[in-house]
This record gives sequence, C-alpha cells and structure tokens, in this order.
Amino acid sequence: MTTLTSRGLEDVVACTSAICAIDGQRGRLQYGGYDIDELVQAGFEEVCYLLWHGELPDRAQLEALRAALDAVELPEAVVTLLRGLPRDAHPLTALRTAISALGALDPEAEDGSPEANTRKAVRLVAQTPRIVAAWQRLRNGLEPVMPEPGDSIAQGFLRGLSGKAPSADAVRAIDMALVLHAEHELNASTFAVRVAAATETDLHAAITAACAVLKGPKHGGANEDVPVMLDEIGTPAAAEAWVKAKLAWRETLPVAERQQIKARFSGFGHRVYKVDDPRAAHLRRMAQRLAEGDPTVARRLAIAERVRELMAAEKGLKVNVDFYSALVYQALGIPSDLNTSIFAIARMAGWTAHALEQYADNRLIRPRAEYIGSSERRFMPLAARG
Amino acid sequence: MTTLTSRGLEDVVACTSAICAIDGQRGRLQYGGYDIDELVQAGFEEVCYLLWHGELPDRAQLEALRAALDAVELPEAVVTLLRGLPRDAHPLTALRTAISALGALDPEAEDGSPEANTRKAVRLVAQTPRIVAAWQRLRNGLEPVMPEPGDSIAQGFLRGLSGKAPSADAVRAIDMALVLHAEHELNASTFAVRVAAATETDLHAAITAACAVLKGPKHGGANEDVPVMLDEIGTPAAAEAWVKAKLAWRETLPVAERQQIKARFSGFGHRVYKVDDPRAAHLRRMAQRLAEGDPTVARRLAIAERVRELMAAEKGLKVNVDFYSALVYQALGIPSDLNTSIFAIARMAGWTAHALEQYADNRLIRPRAEYIGSSERRFMPLAARG
Repeated sequence: MTTLTSRGLEDVVACTSAICAIDGQRGRLQYGGYDIDELVQAGFEEVCYLLWHGELPDRAQLEALRAALDAVELPEAVVTLLRGLPRDAHPLTALRTAISALGALDPEAEDGSPEANTRKAVRLVAQTPRIVAAWQRLRNGLEPVMPEPGDSIAQGFLRGLSGKAPSADAVRAIDMALVLHAEHELNASTFAVRVAAATETDLHAAITAACAVLKGPKHGGANEDVPVMLDEIGTPAAAEAWVKAKLAWRETLPVAERQQIKARFSGFGHRVYKVDDPRAAHLRRMAQRLAEGDPTVARRLAIAERVRELMAAEKGLKVNVDFYSALVYQALGIPSDLNTSIFAIARMAGWTAHALEQYADNRLIRPRAEYIGSSERRFMPLAARG
Repeated sequence: MTTLTSRGLEDVVACTSAICAIDGQRGRLQYGGYDIDELVQAGFEEVCYLLWHGELPDRAQLEALRAALDAVELPEAVVTLLRGLPRDAHPLTALRTAISALGALDPEAEDGSPEANTRKAVRLVAQTPRIVAAWQRLRNGLEPVMPEPGDSIAQGFLRGLSGKAPSADAVRAIDMALVLHAEHELNASTFAVRVAAATETDLHAAITAACAVLKGPKHGGANEDVPVMLDEIGTPAAAEAWVKAKLAWRETLPVAERQQIKARFSGFGHRVYKVDDPRAAHLRRMAQRLAEGDPTVARRLAIAERVRELMAAEKGLKVNVDFYSALVYQALGIPSDLNTSIFAIARMAGWTAHALEQYADNRLIRPRAEYIGSSERRFMPLAARG
C-alpha cells in the first residue's frame, strides 16, 4: 500500500517557511532574504530579531531586545542540577538536561500564547550560553561566572568561560560564528523542533528535542571531530599520507559502513550543498586572522588547508561549516567538546524561530512507514511456545 | 525550485520498518505480524521482546528479560534531580528531564554499539515506570517506592504509585494498556526518535526527544483531557446538550482555529485510522469490567458512551485510543495528568525498537522547506536603518 517516498526524506519538502532559503546548487544561504555574505556584518542579536520577526531591527528595537536579554536570569536550580551531573557528561547532555528542566522552572513554561513563546525564546537565547559556560567551569571545579550588564551574547559567553573580560577579537569571532550558525532551514535538529511543535508541546520541550538531535555526529556533533583530526595529522607535510591512508582504509570497508561516521572525514560534505558551503569562507578568513602571530593556530590552519586541497583533488569533496568553525574555536582556546554547544547557542535563534512559525500555522507532522516485517501470523500463548 | 510535498508529511513514507503495520482503512494494527487483537493476551515484557527482536520470546528468553529488568537500578541522582524540580512541573517534563540526565548517568551512555543500545533499551523500559511513580509520590510529599523483586513492569509501576501491592485486576488493566500503547509506527514521537537516531546521537538523547514530543496535546497529551471532559459533562443525560453546544461553539471559530486543540474533542479522530481504532475496543471492555460494582466508574463510562454515540451521529467521528484508556486509568484512581506518562512507559518499547532499527541501517533524515519569505534584499548596517 505504502512505499518509501525517499530515503532520509531527501528532497521531500516537509513545510513552507519564511525564515531561511538555501540554494545548494549555487552555495547561497539567506536569512529572511538577506544573504549570509552581507549578514555577517550584523551582530547575533540583530539576527535573532530578524529570524523571529522577519525584519532587521531598528536601533530602538535592537536596544529593547538587548535590554530584555540582559534582564534574563538563569535559575539557581539549573546550576544545582548541573552540579549533580557527572563531570564527564557530554556538554550537550548537560545542556539538554538543563533546558529540559527550564521547562519546569520557566514562569511561562506552560503558556503557549505567541507572546509568551516569544518571551521564552528571548530567555532561551540568553540562558543557553550561560548554561554552556557554567557547565565548562563546573566540570573543571570552578564556580559559574555570569555576564555583566551590557554584555552581548558573545561577550557574556566568553566571560562565562574564562571568568575574565574577553578580547575584542575573540568577541568578534564568536559573534560572527553565532550569526553563521544561527539558522539553516530544515536541518535535523530544526526539523525535530517542528515535529515537536506540531504536537503543540511546549517550547522548552521542542528545544530539548533539538538539543538531543544536534548532539549526533552526523549533525552538530561533527564539529568536535575536526580538531581531533588536525591534531592526529600533526604537520602539513603529514597530511597527504594521512588522507591517502584514510581513503584507502575506507575503501576496505563494506559499502554501508563507508557512509558511517567513523569512515567519513569530519568537516566535509553536506546533504544540501553541492558546492562550497557559503559559511566556510567567512570562518576561513576568521581563522586566517586568528592565525596571524599565533604559530600553533597557523600550523593547524596549514594542515587544514592541505587536507582541504587533498580532499578536493582526491574526492571532489567540499568543506562544510564545521571545518573552519572548529579551527576558530580551537584558536580561541575553547575545548573541542564544547563546539557543538556553541552551535546550540547559535542555532537557538533558528530553532525558536521555527517553533514560533510552526505554532502559528500548524499541522501535525506524522509520516508513514513502509512495512517490511513478518507477514501476518497467529499468536500462540507462551505455554504453547515452550 | 522546491514545493511542499505534503502538509504535515501526510501519506509521505519516511522509512521502511519491520516493527509495526497499521491498516488505517480496515482498522488493523500488527506488531511484527501479530494482530493486536490476539497480542492483548501477551504481557508487556513479551511485547517488548517482540518489538526489539522481531519474534516472541520462548520461556527461557522471557525469563532472561524479566531478570534483566528486575536487576535494573534507578540511580539515586535521578531521584535527587526530581526532588529539585518544582512540584507543579508537568509529569512529562519531569520524566523527560530525568531521562535526559540518565544520558549522563547510564554506564554505557556514550556506547553506540548494538549490544549496548539493547541493554540501554532494557534499562529505559525498567526505569521509566520508576521515574513516573517516583515523581507522583515526590510531588505529593511522599518517598519513592521501588518495585519488589519479581514484579512485572505493570505491577512495579502500580506499587510505585500507591506504595502497596496492587490488585490483580489493576495489574491486568495496566499490563493490557501497556501492550496496546507499546508501538504505533511513525507517530510524531517515534518519528522524532528516528530523526534523532539518524544523526547517530545516543539512545538517551533520542528517547528524550520522544518524551518532549509525546507531551503535545495533539499527540500523547490528548489523553489527559478526556477525564476533564467527562467530569465537565457530569451525567449521561447532560451529554447531548454539552456535545451540541460545543459543536455549535466550534462553528463560530475561524476555520484554522477549528483544527486547534481547544476546538477539538479529545479522544476522537486519528490521522491514520479512518475507522474504529482497534485499540479502543479492548480498552472499552476493560473499562466495562472495571465499572462493575463501581458506580463512579459506571457513571463516567455511561457519559463516555453517550458522547461517543453523539459524536458518531453528529460528525461521524470515531474514538481513538485515548478515549477509553483515560477511563481505565481514572477507574484505577490514577490522576489524569499522569496519563501521558503511562503512555510513555508503554511507548518506550516502540521508541527503543525504532531507534535500534534506525541505527542498524541509517541515513540522515533531512527534508527541505519551501521558502515563502521575503525575496532577496540588500543588507543595510544598523546606522543606516535608523
């Protein structure tokens, strides 16, 4: 009766949306009609406003949003919860659990009105970097440090990590990374948000689902593996032998396994982009800037460039957003197992925008499966089965 | 370039699966080839085995599974976490947060091997009823009560709620409800499990996403509203006026809003079933049995029957699984805001089965959106926007 429409829903169009357009053939990404190549001039807070309201804010609107973000508190119960988790917990597991708990602690948790949901979106954008930074300090035996009044999201996050006022360069790098990662149409975690919101579950539940999905190494989790790869290679000269050996090893695997994460190269390839990921160019320039006068960063960048050339020559594979963002975060001294958490801080903007859009014009998302199991059979009670 | 395939992915086939077949035209449901009308003779543990392994267990296999379930512990850290949540938190929010935390506490949380995932599935099936029961007691100021050795899932859950050995009738009712709710193909929460697992995120993350989605009133959350409706009606004689008034009020709403939850009748209609939900008949008989000698249950059942007749006559709408399950749980003295949590205890079997199946033959689930937003426009910096 029912046969598979498309494996992985590839090229199936699951909803309409006014938030984001991706042209995978031309390598273009637009939020609300603005090309990402121009939008990198904006700050993350401006982009949040654009994604939620469909228009860039004027000065008064931006100031109001900044004031609202500034006024947000992270409930002490969330910090207590984080203290109770094992220190070796994955940061995304800690973040997901904290956001899930905020679904009980938020004063408007069960208020599904558009106004309450917009206020909750603001709180989630402000709370997420605080949770990530608090977890990083707590797991290292340090006390959480909250943003100072007037801190941008990027600034407050970096202050929360180090406990000190961050450099302007570091703030600019993180702010740009947040803008570039803020939204990307129906990627798996955002699609999960819409599947969740379509049941009319509350916003915190929908965002918890998104965090759960983002953790996967075939999605956000991929950006934690790039620094591991670069360090494993060690020097630019070693890149060619490493890439060729890994490609040769990959060929020894069964076809199905070649597609699996361990056999893939982190930071390469994308379901939608058939050409260069437009976000990568900006992150590459940022990595180049951060490499000036820092030999360690320069060496890693040189390895990365060599791997990129080799993969293009050998396999025609293009780098994706994870490739250079991992380098940027590493250059800022951020441990690589926080990379996906930074992705979550950014994507909170897009996730909440998609939830608001789904709630506003909703239909339950409920596909079918093609049954390929045992044909009809008669039940025998346990006693008769032996 | 891309146009909407189907709103809500209706009739889109998102994957193949050997777990469950639904024939919505004939009102038939099969787990692994066994019709639900026969499978109600089995216990929930047998059905878990069937969903995970594709075959019903023999006696030795069932005993091994029962022993494994019996040996599971709920980490004390989870109880501590539950104590830290506000007592008015929704039970599904508490459950979701606890399961998310188990993703940090489980000894094999980050082990994605099929063997570890199967062991984690067993632990999740055993832990979920303990979390639900513990939350029910904690929010009422009582200490959690854990199952006794040899308790079935149904028995241990009821003991965990009341602190006392449950009656055989109550155990049979819950056990049957668990079997009937164990699995239902690509409902929204199970689909979310597959979206999550397809990123290769860990099993606890995928199940956390499922709990987040199940909470929605257009999905599992619907079964909390049926008792509210029955109590609001009050007597069988009042049903006709109530149904007619509500239908008339619904007609006054804008078309879009009529589809929304507040304007729907809880317990009626289903995306897939065009005829009677095959699960409802079994729950109806169980409700009738529980109504014998219990005037309160009998009165509620009489109201329910009248509402069912009226809705069939007025709108041709069929009852779904939520309609009588809510009556059964109410007859057992379970507060109605735990109904979705019981759904979660049952569906944990299907969720974990779908995760295992997705991990075993995986492709990232990543559909597209049709962009309907602003056409291309040029960015102006804030200073130029005013």
